[in-house]
Amino acid sequence: MSLAECDRYLEEREQEHLEAIQEFLRIPSVSALPEHQGDVRRAAEWLADYLRRIGVPQVELLPTERNPVVFGAWHVDDAQPTAMIYGHYDVQPPDPLDLWTSPPFEPQVREDKLYARGASDDKGNVMVALQGVEALVRTQGRPPINLKFFFEGEEEIGSPSLPAFMPNHREKLACDFIISADGGQPSLDQPGVTLTAKGIAACQVNVRTADTDLHSGMFGAAVPNAAQVTAHLAASFHTPDGRVAVEGFYDRVRELSEEERAELAAAQASAGPYWEKVGAPALWGEPGYSPGERVAARPTLDINGIWSGFQGEGVKTVTPAEGHFKITCRLVADQDPEEILTLIERHVEKHCPPWATATVERFPGSARPFGIRRDHPALKTAMEVLEQIFGKPPVIARQGGTIPVAEIFQRELGADMVFFAFGTPDGNVHAPNESMRLESMRRGRRAYCAYLTALAK
Amino acid sequence: MSLAECDRYLEEREQEHLEAIQEFLRIPSVSALPEHQGDVRRAAEWLADYLRRIGVPQVELLPTERNPVVFGAWHVDDAQPTAMIYGHYDVQPPDPLDLWTSPPFEPQVREDKLYARGASDDKGNVMVALQGVEALVRTQGRPPINLKFFFEGEEEIGSPSLPAFMPNHREKLACDFIISADGGQPSLDQPGVTLTAKGIAACQVNVRTADTDLHSGMFGAAVPNAAQVTAHLAASFHTPDGRVAVEGFYDRVRELSEEERAELAAAQASAGPYWEKVGAPALWGEPGYSPGERVAARPTLDINGIWSGFQGEGVKTVTPAEGHFKITCRLVADQDPEEILTLIERHVEKHCPPWATATVERFPGSARPFGIRRDHPALKTAMEVLEQIFGKPPVIARQGGTIPVAEIFQRELGADMVFFAFGTPDGNVHAPNESMRLESMRRGRRAYCAYLTALAK
Repeated sequence: MSLAECDRYLEEREQEHLEAIQEFLRIPSVSALPEHQGDVRRAAEWLADYLRRIGVPQVELLPTERNPVVFGAWHVDDAQPTAMIYGHYDVQPPDPLDLWTSPPFEPQVREDKLYARGASDDKGNVMVALQGVEALVRTQGRPPINLKFFFEGEEEIGSPSLPAFMPNHREKLACDFIISADGGQPSLDQPGVTLTAKGIAACQVNVRTADTDLHSGMFGAAVPNAAQVTAHLAASFHTPDGRVAVEGFYDRVRELSEEERAELAAAQASAGPYWEKVGAPALWGEPGYSPGERVAARPTLDINGIWSGFQGEGVKTVTPAEGHFKITCRLVADQDPEEILTLIERHVEKHCPPWATATVERFPGSARPFGIRRDHPALKTAMEVLEQIFGKPPVIARQGGTIPVAEIFQRELGADMVFFAFGTPDGNVHAPNESMRLESMRRGRRAYCAYLTALAK
Repeated sequence: MSLAECDRYLEEREQEHLEAIQEFLRIPSVSALPEHQGDVRRAAEWLADYLRRIGVPQVELLPTERNPVVFGAWHVDDAQPTAMIYGHYDVQPPDPLDLWTSPPFEPQVREDKLYARGASDDKGNVMVALQGVEALVRTQGRPPINLKFFFEGEEEIGSPSLPAFMPNHREKLACDFIISADGGQPSLDQPGVTLTAKGIAACQVNVRTADTDLHSGMFGAAVPNAAQVTAHLAASFHTPDGRVAVEGFYDRVRELSEEERAELAAAQASAGPYWEKVGAPALWGEPGYSPGERVAARPTLDINGIWSGFQGEGVKTVTPAEGHFKITCRLVADQDPEEILTLIERHVEKHCPPWATATVERFPGSARPFGIRRDHPALKTAMEVLEQIFGKPPVIARQGGTIPVAEIFQRELGADMVFFAFGTPDGNVHAPNESMRLESMRRGRRAYCAYLTALAK
C-alpha cells in the first residue's frame, strides 16, 4: 500500500528534510520586535517557496494589516473534502539570550533533538506537515484530498490582523475543516487530541508617581515610589492562596463535571505531570483543582513581566517615578476577553493608591476560548490515525495554550479545527533552548501521510 | 580687605571657570558601570591636574582597591589649623537617557543653570571650592590655613574601598576637620548647615521559581511565577499606611525631641517643601511625621529598581523564572547598617513563599549615620560666613542623603565634617536634567574665600 512508499521516501529524504527545517529556523522571524519586520517577511517568502517546491499549484502571500498570510490551494477532486492546514511562521522573542546553550537562530542537533527558537513552535511542526504532504505528492502524484494552506505571521503576538482579514477572504479560505500544525502531543509515546484551547486577553499596567526619577535621600521619605506602587499593584492580582483576585473573574467559568474531571485525570495520568520537571520548589495555583485541571480547564492571570527603576549592576539610590507590568489571562468557556480586560481596569482603579496614577493599556490579539465537538468526523479520523501510528489510543486533552485563530476560523468560516502536531512538552517552547525531537518529526511526517489518506472518501 | 580682591578675581575669571567645570563634566565618570572604568580614571587625572594648576605643591593619586583618591596637601603655617576639603569626582549613571533635554555629558547652560550629570553632584561643587581656593592663592600667594584635598571616585557606589583605605593613610590624611564640598544649600536665598546625614545599607533580592522561563499556557496555571513572587516580596516591605514592615527596623531609632522638631520645622519652613514640586499625586511616607521630618530624621527603606520577565514591546506569554529588586535603606542614629541588612534577610526568609527561593545579596558601601556636635568651632565659623554671604542666618539642617565618608572620617581620623556646598534642591541630582545654578556657583566660590580666611587664627 501507498503508505509504505511514503515511509521509504521519508527515510531516504530525512537529512534533506532536516536541513530544510534548519534553513527555515535560521530566519529570526520574531513578530513581537519591530526590528525583525524584514525577517518576518523573509520567512513568509521562504515558506511560500517551499509550498511551490512541493508542487502546490496556487501559492500566494495575502497581505494583512501587518504580516502576510502564506496561502496555498490544491484542488484535486470535487468528491473529496477540503482540509486547510494551519500553522505560523513567526516565533517568540529569544531572550534571555544568555540562557541558550547554542544561539537561538543557529539550529543545532544534540542527542536526537533539534534546538532553535521555533524548532517546535511552530516552524518545526509546520515543516513536518508539509514534508508529509510532499511524500504523498511524490509517491502518488497528488494529495488524496483537496488541500488549502494557511500560515500566518502573527500568532505569537495574538493574531491581531486576522479578525479584519478573515471576512474579506471567506470564499478563498472556504474549507470543511482545519488541521492545525500548531500544538503538540502529550509525550513521545502517548498521542492525544485537543478538545479545547484557552482564550487570551493581554494588557500592560503603567504606573506613575512623579515627573522624574528622584534622589532617594532627598525625596524618598516624602514622595511615593513607583517601584513600590508597581509591586503592590502587581501583587494585588492574586489572593495569598492562589486565586485570581479580580472581582468577577470567575463569574462566567463553566465548572467541570465529575465526568470531565475523570477524563482529564486519565489524559494527564498518561501524559505525566510535565510541570513537575521545571525546577520549581513547589507547584502553585488556584486551590481546589489539581495542577492538570488548572492547566487544562481553569482560567489564569499571569504577570509576564514587571519593571521599574534601576536594573544595572550595583547600587543606584533612586526613587523611581514610573513602573510597568504586563498581564496575560488564559481564558476558558464562557469567559469573554474584552469583559475580562474591563474587570482588570476596574481592579487597577480600585487598588491604585491615591499617591499614584495607573493606566491599563489593552493589547490587540484577544481571543475567545476554543472548543470542537467530540463526534466531529475529522477529529475521530485523527484519533484512529494517531492510535495506528503510536500504537495506543489518544487521550482527549484540553490545551492550556491559546490558538487565537481556532476561534476565529470557527466564527468566520464555520470550520472546526483538529490539532495535529507533534512537539512534546519537554520542548521549552517560548523559553530558552526550545527544541523538537527528531523522533517526533519522523512520526509527524508519517502521521500526516496517514491522516490525509484516511480523510479521503 | 583681601576678599574684595578675591571677588574681583572671580568676576574676571567667571567664563574661564565655567569652561573648566564643563571640561570636567564631559568626562562620563560613572562609577556604577564597569564600562566607564577608564572615564573614572580620566576624571581623577583631570582633577589632579587642576590642583596642580592652582598651585597645590603636593598632588598624587592614591590607589584604592577600585578608584584612586585624588589627594593634595599644602602646608603653610604650623600655627594654623589644617582643613581637608572633601568631594567626589564620580557621578551617578545617567539613565533614563530619553528624559534628558540635552545629553548628560554635553554640558549646556540654559537660563542661568548649567545642565549635566554631575553639575551639582559633585563635580560642580568640587570645582566651586577649588576655584575659591584658586582666588585666594592668586590674590594672596597662598591659602590662609593649611589645606588638604581628598576627592574620591566611589561616592556614588557607597565608597566601598574607603574603609580598607583609611587605616593605611591616617598620617597623610591627618587634619583638624573636614570641609565637605558635597551637599547643598536649602535654597538659593537661604543658607544652611548640616547637623546630621543619614547612613545607608544596600542589597538586592534575587527570586527564583523554576530553572527557566516557561510558556504561560502550558505551565502558568501549575507552576509559580517569579514576577508575581517578586512583586509580593517587594510589596511586603511596607505596611499599607507607609511604615517599613521589617521587624525591628525602628528599634534603635532615636525619637526626635519637641525641641528638635521645632528646629526642623523652622529649617524647613525657610527652605520650602521642595518635595511638593515633583509632580506626585500625593505625598507618601511614614505616618506620624511631617514629610520634612521624614526626610531629615526618619529612616526609610526604598526600592530602587525591580525587574522580572519580559519588558519588550507588546505581548510575550511567558511565566518568568526569576526576578530581582534592589533596596537601599536610609538610616538614622543609632541604626546599624549591617544589623538592618540582617533584619532584611530575616524578613525575606519569613515572607518568601515555599514555592520560590529568595536570596539577599549585600552590596558593599554600607555607612552608619553621621552627626557633628552643635558647638564645633568650624561649624560655628561656617554659620557666621554663610550669614555674611547670604544676608541671613543659616538654618540647622539634617540631610536626607548619605555621605558615607563623613562617618568613616569621624571614625578613622577623629575629624568632624562641616558641609559647605552650594547646590540647591531643584538641581535634579541622581535624576535626568541634573543642573547647578550659575548664581550658586558664584556665591560658592566667594563663600570658600571667606570661610578659609575666617578659619585662620
